[in-house]
Amino acid sequence: MGPLPRTLELFYDVLSPYSWLAFEVLCRYKNIWNVSLQLRPTLIAGIMKDSGNQPPALLPRKALYMKNDVRLLGQHLQVPIHLPKDFFFVIFEKGSLTAMRFLTVVKLEHPELLEKVSRELWMRVWSRDEDITEPQSILAAAEKAGMSTGRARELLERVSTPQVKNQLKETTDAACRYGAFGLPVTVAHLDDETYMLFGSDRMELLAHLLGEKWLGPVPPAATARL
Amino acid sequence: MGPLPRTLELFYDVLSPYSWLAFEVLCRYKNIWNVSLQLRPTLIAGIMKDSGNQPPALLPRKALYMKNDVRLLGQHLQVPIHLPKDFFFVIFEKGSLTAMRFLTVVKLEHPELLEKVSRELWMRVWSRDEDITEPQSILAAAEKAGMSTGRARELLERVSTPQVKNQLKETTDAACRYGAFGLPVTVAHLDDETYMLFGSDRMELLAHLLGEKWLGPVPPAATARL
Repeated sequence: MGPLPRTLELFYDVLSPYSWLAFEVLCRYKNIWNVSLQLRPTLIAGIMKDSGNQPPALLPRKALYMKNDVRLLGQHLQVPIHLPKDFFFVIFEKGSLTAMRFLTVVKLEHPELLEKVSRELWMRVWSRDEDITEPQSILAAAEKAGMSTGRARELLERVSTPQVKNQLKETTDAACRYGAFGLPVTVAHLDDETYMLFGSDRMELLAHLLGEKWLGPVPPAATARL
Repeated sequence: MGPLPRTLELFYDVLSPYSWLAFEVLCRYKNIWNVSLQLRPTLIAGIMKDSGNQPPALLPRKALYMKNDVRLLGQHLQVPIHLPKDFFFVIFEKGSLTAMRFLTVVKLEHPELLEKVSRELWMRVWSRDEDITEPQSILAAAEKAGMSTGRARELLERVSTPQVKNQLKETTDAACRYGAFGLPVTVAHLDDETYMLFGSDRMELLAHLLGEKWLGPVPPAATARL
Protein backbone atom coordinates (compact mmCIF):
# COMPACT_ATOMS: atom_id res chain seq x y z
CA MET A 1 0.00 0.00 0.00
CA GLY A 2 1.38 3.37 -1.01
CA PRO A 3 1.10 6.60 0.99
CA LEU A 4 -2.37 8.04 1.58
CA PRO A 5 -3.52 10.46 -1.11
CA ARG A 6 -3.33 14.15 -0.25
CA THR A 7 -6.60 16.08 -0.45
CA LEU A 8 -7.16 18.90 -2.93
CA GLU A 9 -10.26 21.07 -2.54
CA LEU A 10 -11.32 22.99 -5.64
CA PHE A 11 -13.64 25.92 -4.92
CA TYR A 12 -15.29 26.98 -8.17
CA ASP A 13 -18.22 28.75 -9.79
CA VAL A 14 -19.40 27.97 -13.31
CA LEU A 15 -19.61 31.71 -13.98
CA SER A 16 -15.80 31.85 -13.81
CA PRO A 17 -13.94 30.77 -16.96
CA TYR A 18 -10.66 30.41 -15.08
CA SER A 19 -12.48 28.03 -12.72
CA TRP A 20 -13.28 25.85 -15.74
CA LEU A 21 -9.62 25.76 -16.77
CA ALA A 22 -8.47 24.76 -13.27
CA PHE A 23 -11.28 22.18 -13.05
CA GLU A 24 -10.30 20.44 -16.29
CA VAL A 25 -6.61 20.34 -15.44
CA LEU A 26 -7.29 18.94 -11.96
CA CYS A 27 -9.79 16.40 -13.31
CA ARG A 28 -7.03 15.22 -15.70
CA TYR A 29 -4.44 14.96 -12.94
CA LYS A 30 -6.61 13.40 -10.21
CA ASN A 31 -5.82 9.92 -11.58
CA ILE A 32 -2.18 10.69 -12.30
CA TRP A 33 -1.15 12.29 -9.01
CA ASN A 34 -1.65 10.63 -5.65
CA VAL A 35 -4.46 13.01 -4.66
CA SER A 36 -8.12 12.95 -3.72
CA LEU A 37 -9.95 15.80 -5.47
CA GLN A 38 -12.93 17.37 -3.69
CA LEU A 39 -15.09 19.57 -5.92
CA ARG A 40 -16.70 22.39 -3.94
CA PRO A 41 -19.39 24.49 -5.67
CA THR A 42 -19.01 28.08 -4.42
CA LEU A 43 -20.72 31.40 -5.15
CA ILE A 44 -18.27 33.85 -6.71
CA ALA A 45 -20.56 36.82 -6.00
CA GLY A 46 -20.34 35.96 -2.30
CA ILE A 47 -16.53 35.84 -2.43
CA MET A 48 -16.30 39.23 -4.14
CA LYS A 49 -18.64 40.80 -1.62
CA ASP A 50 -16.93 39.32 1.43
CA SER A 51 -13.40 40.19 0.28
CA GLY A 52 -14.24 43.65 -1.09
CA ASN A 53 -12.72 42.67 -4.44
CA GLN A 54 -14.02 43.82 -7.81
CA PRO A 55 -14.45 41.58 -10.85
CA PRO A 56 -11.40 42.17 -13.08
CA ALA A 57 -13.61 42.76 -16.13
CA LEU A 58 -14.77 46.07 -14.63
CA LEU A 59 -11.45 47.65 -15.64
CA PRO A 60 -11.64 48.09 -19.43
CA ARG A 61 -8.04 47.05 -20.14
CA LYS A 62 -8.37 43.97 -17.96
CA ALA A 63 -11.61 42.99 -19.73
CA LEU A 64 -9.88 43.30 -23.09
CA TYR A 65 -6.90 41.30 -21.89
CA MET A 66 -9.07 38.64 -20.29
CA LYS A 67 -10.90 37.98 -23.54
CA ASN A 68 -7.63 37.20 -25.32
CA ASP A 69 -6.16 35.39 -22.36
CA VAL A 70 -9.13 33.05 -21.97
CA ARG A 71 -9.12 32.31 -25.71
CA LEU A 72 -5.38 31.53 -25.77
CA LEU A 73 -5.49 29.45 -22.59
CA GLY A 74 -8.50 27.54 -23.92
CA GLN A 75 -6.48 26.55 -27.00
CA HIS A 76 -3.39 25.70 -25.00
CA LEU A 77 -5.27 23.70 -22.35
CA GLN A 78 -7.59 22.11 -24.92
CA VAL A 79 -10.76 23.32 -23.22
CA PRO A 80 -13.42 24.40 -25.76
CA ILE A 81 -13.93 27.81 -24.20
CA HIS A 82 -15.57 30.61 -26.17
CA LEU A 83 -16.65 33.91 -24.73
CA PRO A 84 -20.37 34.65 -24.61
CA LYS A 85 -21.31 37.49 -26.95
CA ASP A 86 -22.62 39.66 -24.15
CA PHE A 87 -20.01 38.90 -21.55
CA PHE A 88 -21.09 41.66 -19.15
CA PHE A 89 -24.76 40.73 -19.23
CA VAL A 90 -23.92 37.08 -18.52
CA ILE A 91 -21.58 37.86 -15.63
CA PHE A 92 -23.10 40.91 -14.01
CA GLU A 93 -26.81 40.60 -14.75
CA LYS A 94 -27.61 36.91 -15.02
CA GLY A 95 -25.18 35.44 -12.51
CA SER A 96 -25.03 31.85 -11.29
CA LEU A 97 -27.04 31.62 -8.05
CA THR A 98 -29.52 28.91 -9.13
CA ALA A 99 -26.86 26.97 -11.04
CA MET A 100 -24.52 26.89 -8.05
CA ARG A 101 -27.37 25.93 -5.70
CA PHE A 102 -28.24 23.13 -8.12
CA LEU A 103 -24.64 21.88 -8.08
CA THR A 104 -24.81 22.02 -4.29
CA VAL A 105 -27.79 19.63 -4.30
CA VAL A 106 -26.05 17.42 -6.87
CA LYS A 107 -23.05 17.19 -4.56
CA LEU A 108 -25.31 16.22 -1.65
CA GLU A 109 -27.40 13.67 -3.53
CA HIS A 110 -25.37 12.50 -6.52
CA PRO A 111 -21.71 13.32 -5.89
CA GLU A 112 -20.79 10.87 -8.66
CA LEU A 113 -22.44 13.22 -11.20
CA LEU A 114 -21.02 16.51 -9.89
CA GLU A 115 -18.07 16.61 -12.28
CA LYS A 116 -20.24 15.94 -15.31
CA VAL A 117 -23.06 18.34 -14.43
CA SER A 118 -20.53 21.10 -13.67
CA ARG A 119 -18.86 20.54 -17.04
CA GLU A 120 -22.20 20.64 -18.88
CA LEU A 121 -23.05 23.99 -17.26
CA TRP A 122 -19.67 25.41 -18.35
CA MET A 123 -20.23 23.99 -21.82
CA ARG A 124 -23.51 25.92 -21.96
CA VAL A 125 -22.35 29.31 -20.70
CA TRP A 126 -18.65 29.38 -21.63
CA SER A 127 -18.65 27.36 -24.83
CA ARG A 128 -22.02 27.60 -26.58
CA ASP A 129 -23.24 30.94 -25.18
CA GLU A 130 -26.38 29.37 -23.75
CA ASP A 131 -28.36 30.34 -20.68
CA ILE A 132 -27.72 28.72 -17.28
CA THR A 133 -30.30 30.62 -15.21
CA GLU A 134 -33.64 29.18 -16.39
CA PRO A 135 -34.96 25.86 -15.00
CA GLN A 136 -34.99 24.23 -18.45
CA SER A 137 -31.34 25.23 -18.99
CA ILE A 138 -30.26 23.57 -15.77
CA LEU A 139 -32.38 20.49 -16.47
CA ALA A 140 -30.84 20.19 -19.94
CA ALA A 141 -27.33 20.25 -18.44
CA ALA A 142 -28.26 17.62 -15.84
CA GLU A 143 -29.78 15.34 -18.47
CA LYS A 144 -26.77 15.69 -20.72
CA ALA A 145 -24.66 14.64 -17.75
CA GLY A 146 -26.69 11.44 -17.44
CA MET A 147 -29.35 12.31 -14.85
CA SER A 148 -32.96 11.31 -15.49
CA THR A 149 -35.41 14.17 -16.13
CA GLY A 150 -37.50 13.15 -13.14
CA ARG A 151 -34.56 13.12 -10.77
CA ALA A 152 -33.23 16.43 -12.13
CA ARG A 153 -36.65 18.03 -11.53
CA GLU A 154 -36.73 16.73 -7.96
CA LEU A 155 -33.31 18.18 -7.25
CA LEU A 156 -34.18 21.49 -8.90
CA GLU A 157 -37.18 21.81 -6.57
CA ARG A 158 -34.81 21.72 -3.65
CA VAL A 159 -32.56 24.65 -4.63
CA SER A 160 -34.48 27.09 -2.44
CA THR A 161 -34.56 24.96 0.69
CA PRO A 162 -32.65 26.24 3.72
CA GLN A 163 -30.42 23.14 3.66
CA VAL A 164 -29.15 23.89 0.16
CA LYS A 165 -28.90 27.67 0.60
CA ASN A 166 -26.96 27.17 3.82
CA GLN A 167 -24.66 24.59 2.31
CA LEU A 168 -23.68 26.94 -0.54
CA LYS A 169 -23.19 29.74 1.94
CA GLU A 170 -21.06 27.53 4.16
CA THR A 171 -18.83 26.49 1.26
CA THR A 172 -18.45 30.13 0.20
CA ASP A 173 -17.57 31.06 3.79
CA ALA A 174 -15.02 28.24 3.91
CA ALA A 175 -13.32 29.63 0.78
CA CYS A 176 -13.25 33.07 2.42
CA ARG A 177 -11.68 31.63 5.55
CA TYR A 178 -8.89 30.25 3.34
CA GLY A 179 -8.39 33.83 2.11
CA ALA A 180 -10.26 33.74 -1.22
CA PHE A 181 -10.77 37.03 -3.08
CA GLY A 182 -11.90 35.38 -6.32
CA LEU A 183 -12.22 31.92 -7.88
CA PRO A 184 -10.95 29.31 -8.58
CA VAL A 185 -9.18 28.51 -5.34
CA THR A 186 -7.33 25.23 -4.86
CA VAL A 187 -6.53 24.24 -1.29
CA ALA A 188 -3.87 21.57 -0.99
CA HIS A 189 -3.71 19.65 2.28
CA LEU A 190 -0.24 18.22 2.62
CA ASP A 191 1.10 16.22 5.53
CA ASP A 192 2.14 19.20 7.56
CA GLU A 193 0.94 22.24 5.68
CA THR A 194 -2.07 23.66 3.88
CA TYR A 195 -1.61 25.81 0.79
CA MET A 196 -4.20 28.05 -0.82
CA LEU A 197 -3.57 28.71 -4.52
CA PHE A 198 -5.60 31.23 -6.49
CA GLY A 199 -6.37 30.99 -10.20
CA SER A 200 -5.79 28.40 -12.90
CA ASP A 201 -2.11 29.21 -13.33
CA ARG A 202 -0.54 27.68 -10.24
CA MET A 203 -0.82 24.04 -11.37
CA GLU A 204 2.90 23.59 -11.99
CA LEU A 205 3.56 25.09 -8.55
CA LEU A 206 0.96 22.69 -7.11
CA ALA A 207 2.80 19.74 -8.67
CA HIS A 208 6.01 21.06 -7.08
CA LEU A 209 4.36 21.34 -3.64
CA LEU A 210 2.92 17.83 -3.97
CA GLY A 211 6.25 16.41 -5.12
CA GLU A 212 4.48 15.18 -8.27
CA LYS A 213 5.46 15.55 -11.91
CA TRP A 214 4.04 18.35 -14.07
CA LEU A 215 3.39 16.95 -17.53
CA GLY A 216 1.82 20.08 -19.02
CA PRO A 217 -1.87 21.05 -19.05
CA VAL A 218 -2.77 18.04 -21.23
CA PRO A 219 -0.92 15.09 -19.66
CA PRO A 220 -0.54 12.01 -21.89
CA ALA A 221 -2.95 9.88 -19.80
CA ALA A 222 -5.66 12.51 -20.24
CA THR A 223 -5.16 12.52 -24.01
CA ALA A 224 -5.35 8.73 -24.09
CA ARG A 225 -8.69 8.81 -22.29
CA LEU A 226 -10.35 11.26 -24.72
CA MET B 1 21.03 29.09 -41.21
CA GLY B 2 17.93 28.50 -39.10
CA PRO B 3 14.85 30.72 -39.00
CA LEU B 4 15.24 34.26 -37.68
CA PRO B 5 14.67 34.57 -33.93
CA ARG B 6 11.35 35.95 -32.83
CA THR B 7 11.46 39.07 -30.67
CA LEU B 8 10.24 39.12 -27.07
CA GLU B 9 9.91 42.47 -25.31
CA LEU B 10 9.85 42.34 -21.51
CA PHE B 11 8.40 45.46 -19.89
CA TYR B 12 9.37 45.49 -16.22
CA ASP B 13 9.91 47.56 -13.10
CA VAL B 14 12.26 46.51 -10.28
CA LEU B 15 9.53 47.45 -7.80
CA SER B 16 7.47 44.52 -9.08
CA PRO B 17 8.40 41.08 -7.66
CA TYR B 18 6.48 39.26 -10.39
CA SER B 19 8.58 41.22 -12.91
CA TRP B 20 11.67 39.70 -11.34
CA LEU B 21 10.25 36.18 -11.69
CA ALA B 22 9.39 36.72 -15.38
CA PHE B 23 12.80 38.32 -15.98
CA GLU B 24 14.76 35.38 -14.57
CA VAL B 25 12.73 32.78 -16.45
CA LEU B 26 13.10 34.67 -19.74
CA CYS B 27 16.83 35.24 -19.16
CA ARG B 28 17.16 31.46 -18.70
CA TYR B 29 15.22 30.68 -21.87
CA LYS B 30 16.70 33.34 -24.17
CA ASN B 31 19.56 30.99 -25.07
CA ILE B 32 17.35 27.89 -25.25
CA TRP B 33 14.52 29.20 -27.40
CA ASN B 34 15.06 30.81 -30.77
CA VAL B 35 14.22 34.29 -29.50
CA SER B 36 15.77 37.71 -29.13
CA LEU B 37 14.93 39.17 -25.71
CA GLN B 38 14.58 42.95 -25.41
CA LEU B 39 14.58 44.23 -21.85
CA ARG B 40 12.47 47.37 -21.49
CA PRO B 41 12.65 49.30 -18.19
CA THR B 42 9.17 50.71 -17.50
CA LEU B 43 7.56 52.72 -14.70
CA ILE B 44 4.85 50.69 -12.98
CA ALA B 45 3.35 53.78 -11.34
CA GLY B 46 2.78 55.23 -14.83
CA ILE B 47 1.03 52.05 -15.97
CA MET B 48 -1.29 52.01 -12.96
CA LYS B 49 -2.20 55.66 -13.46
CA ASP B 50 -2.81 55.35 -17.20
CA SER B 51 -4.90 52.16 -16.93
CA GLY B 52 -6.86 53.19 -13.83
CA ASN B 53 -5.76 49.99 -12.10
CA GLN B 54 -4.96 49.68 -8.40
CA PRO B 55 -1.98 47.82 -6.94
CA PRO B 56 -3.29 44.40 -5.82
CA ALA B 57 -1.72 44.81 -2.38
CA LEU B 58 -4.28 47.51 -1.55
CA LEU B 59 -6.89 44.80 -0.99
CA PRO B 60 -5.97 43.15 2.36
CA ARG B 61 -6.69 39.57 1.26
CA LYS B 62 -4.72 40.02 -1.95
CA ALA B 63 -1.77 41.46 0.00
CA LEU B 64 -1.81 38.45 2.31
CA TYR B 65 -2.06 36.04 -0.61
CA MET B 66 0.68 37.81 -2.55
CA LYS B 67 3.15 37.45 0.30
CA ASN B 68 2.71 33.68 0.32
CA ASP B 69 2.52 33.43 -3.44
CA VAL B 70 5.76 35.34 -4.00
CA ARG B 71 7.53 33.21 -1.39
CA LEU B 72 6.33 29.91 -2.89
CA LEU B 73 7.06 31.00 -6.46
CA GLY B 74 10.52 32.20 -5.42
CA GLN B 75 11.30 28.71 -4.08
CA HIS B 76 9.81 26.95 -7.09
CA LEU B 77 11.52 29.22 -9.63
CA GLN B 78 14.77 29.33 -7.63
CA VAL B 79 14.83 33.11 -7.41
CA PRO B 80 16.07 34.31 -3.98
CA ILE B 81 13.09 36.53 -3.35
CA HIS B 82 12.24 37.72 0.17
CA LEU B 83 9.66 40.31 1.01
CA PRO B 84 10.88 43.59 2.46
CA LYS B 85 9.79 44.04 6.05
CA ASP B 86 7.80 47.16 5.32
CA PHE B 87 6.30 46.11 2.04
CA PHE B 88 3.84 49.03 1.83
CA PHE B 89 6.44 51.69 2.58
CA VAL B 90 8.75 50.28 -0.10
CA ILE B 91 6.06 50.07 -2.77
CA PHE B 92 3.82 53.03 -2.04
CA GLU B 93 6.15 55.56 -0.44
CA LYS B 94 9.62 54.97 -1.82
CA GLY B 95 8.80 53.82 -5.35
CA SER B 96 11.25 53.25 -8.19
CA LEU B 97 11.43 56.44 -10.27
CA THR B 98 15.18 57.09 -10.01
CA ALA B 99 16.04 53.39 -10.28
CA MET B 100 14.00 52.99 -13.46
CA ARG B 101 15.46 56.19 -14.93
CA PHE B 102 18.91 54.84 -14.13
CA LEU B 103 18.13 51.56 -15.92
CA THR B 104 16.90 53.65 -18.85
CA VAL B 105 20.33 55.35 -19.13
CA VAL B 106 22.06 51.98 -18.73
CA LYS B 107 20.02 50.64 -21.63
CA LEU B 108 21.00 53.67 -23.75
CA GLU B 109 24.71 53.64 -22.88
CA HIS B 110 25.58 50.13 -21.69
CA PRO B 111 22.90 47.73 -22.94
CA GLU B 112 25.29 44.85 -22.24
CA LEU B 113 25.01 45.62 -18.49
CA LEU B 114 21.24 46.11 -18.34
CA GLU B 115 20.45 42.55 -17.28
CA LYS B 116 23.04 42.57 -14.50
CA VAL B 117 22.20 46.03 -13.11
CA SER B 118 18.47 45.19 -13.13
CA ARG B 119 19.15 41.96 -11.22
CA GLU B 120 21.31 43.77 -8.65
CA LEU B 121 18.51 46.27 -7.99
CA TRP B 122 16.02 43.41 -7.47
CA MET B 123 18.56 41.69 -5.21
CA ARG B 124 18.65 44.85 -3.11
CA VAL B 125 14.95 45.56 -2.75
CA TRP B 126 13.34 42.12 -3.15
CA SER B 127 15.98 39.90 -1.59
CA ARG B 128 18.01 41.80 0.99
CA ASP B 129 15.48 44.51 1.93
CA GLU B 130 17.86 47.31 0.99
CA ASP B 131 17.09 50.74 -0.36
CA ILE B 132 17.01 51.46 -4.12
CA THR B 133 16.10 55.15 -4.02
CA GLU B 134 19.29 56.84 -2.74
CA PRO B 135 22.19 57.63 -5.12
CA GLN B 136 24.61 55.43 -3.17
CA SER B 137 22.17 52.49 -3.36
CA ILE B 138 21.96 52.74 -7.14
CA LEU B 139 25.73 53.19 -7.47
CA ALA B 140 26.30 50.09 -5.31
CA ALA B 141 24.03 48.03 -7.59
CA ALA B 142 25.80 49.30 -10.72
CA GLU B 143 29.22 48.53 -9.28
CA LYS B 144 28.15 45.05 -8.23
CA ALA B 145 27.03 44.52 -11.82
CA GLY B 146 30.53 45.37 -13.06
CA MET B 147 30.33 49.09 -13.86
CA SER B 148 33.13 51.38 -12.68
CA THR B 149 32.24 53.91 -9.97
CA GLY B 150 33.17 56.80 -12.24
CA ARG B 151 30.98 55.61 -15.08
CA ALA B 152 28.07 54.84 -12.72
CA ARG B 153 28.28 58.40 -11.33
CA GLU B 154 28.25 59.86 -14.84
CA LEU B 155 25.16 57.90 -15.74
CA LEU B 156 23.43 58.76 -12.48
CA GLU B 157 23.92 62.46 -13.22
CA ARG B 158 21.89 61.99 -16.38
CA VAL B 159 18.72 60.55 -14.82
CA SER B 160 17.03 63.95 -14.74
CA THR B 161 17.79 64.95 -18.32
CA PRO B 162 14.84 65.32 -20.69
CA GLN B 163 16.28 62.55 -22.91
CA VAL B 164 16.14 59.98 -20.12
CA LYS B 165 12.83 61.14 -18.64
CA ASN B 166 11.24 61.05 -22.09
CA GLN B 167 12.67 57.65 -22.90
CA LEU B 168 11.18 56.10 -19.74
CA LYS B 169 7.88 57.81 -20.47
CA GLU B 170 7.92 56.54 -24.04
CA THR B 171 8.57 52.96 -22.93
CA THR B 172 5.77 53.21 -20.36
CA ASP B 173 3.45 54.59 -23.06
CA ALA B 174 4.44 51.74 -25.38
CA ALA B 175 3.45 49.19 -22.71
CA CYS B 176 0.12 51.00 -22.30
CA ARG B 177 -0.49 50.87 -26.04
CA TYR B 178 -0.06 47.10 -25.83
CA GLY B 179 -2.81 47.14 -23.20
CA ALA B 180 -0.77 46.94 -19.97
CA PHE B 181 -2.58 47.40 -16.65
CA GLY B 182 0.34 46.18 -14.53
CA LEU B 183 3.78 44.62 -14.91
CA PRO B 184 5.49 42.47 -16.08
CA VAL B 185 4.23 42.43 -19.64
CA THR B 186 5.81 40.19 -22.26
CA VAL B 187 5.11 41.05 -25.88
CA ALA B 188 5.84 38.24 -28.32
CA HIS B 189 6.28 39.19 -31.96
CA LEU B 190 5.64 36.12 -34.05
CA ASP B 191 5.66 35.90 -37.83
CA ASP B 192 2.09 36.98 -38.27
CA GLU B 193 0.82 37.92 -34.86
CA THR B 194 1.71 39.86 -31.74
CA TYR B 195 0.72 38.58 -28.31
CA MET B 196 0.71 40.53 -25.07
CA LEU B 197 1.02 38.37 -21.97
CA PHE B 198 0.60 39.75 -18.46
CA GLY B 199 2.35 38.42 -15.37
CA SER B 200 5.01 35.83 -14.69
CA ASP B 201 2.65 32.87 -15.09
CA ARG B 202 2.15 32.71 -18.85
CA MET B 203 5.57 31.26 -19.69
CA GLU B 204 4.31 27.79 -20.59
CA LEU B 205 1.68 29.46 -22.80
CA LEU B 206 4.45 31.58 -24.34
CA ALA B 207 6.41 28.41 -25.17
CA HIS B 208 3.26 27.01 -26.79
CA LEU B 209 2.77 30.17 -28.89
CA LEU B 210 6.42 30.12 -29.96
CA GLY B 211 6.28 26.41 -30.77
CA GLU B 212 9.14 25.90 -28.33
CA LYS B 213 9.49 23.37 -25.50
CA TRP B 214 8.63 24.26 -21.92
CA LEU B 215 11.17 22.62 -19.63
CA GLY B 216 9.88 24.07 -16.37
CA PRO B 217 10.93 27.33 -14.70
CA VAL B 218 14.51 26.08 -14.18
CA PRO B 219 15.47 24.49 -17.50
CA PRO B 220 18.49 22.12 -17.39
CA ALA B 221 20.73 24.48 -19.38
CA ALA B 222 20.10 27.23 -16.83
CA THR B 223 21.03 24.92 -13.97
CA ALA B 224 24.22 23.89 -15.76
CA ARG B 225 25.26 27.53 -16.11
CA LEU B 226 24.82 28.36 -12.42
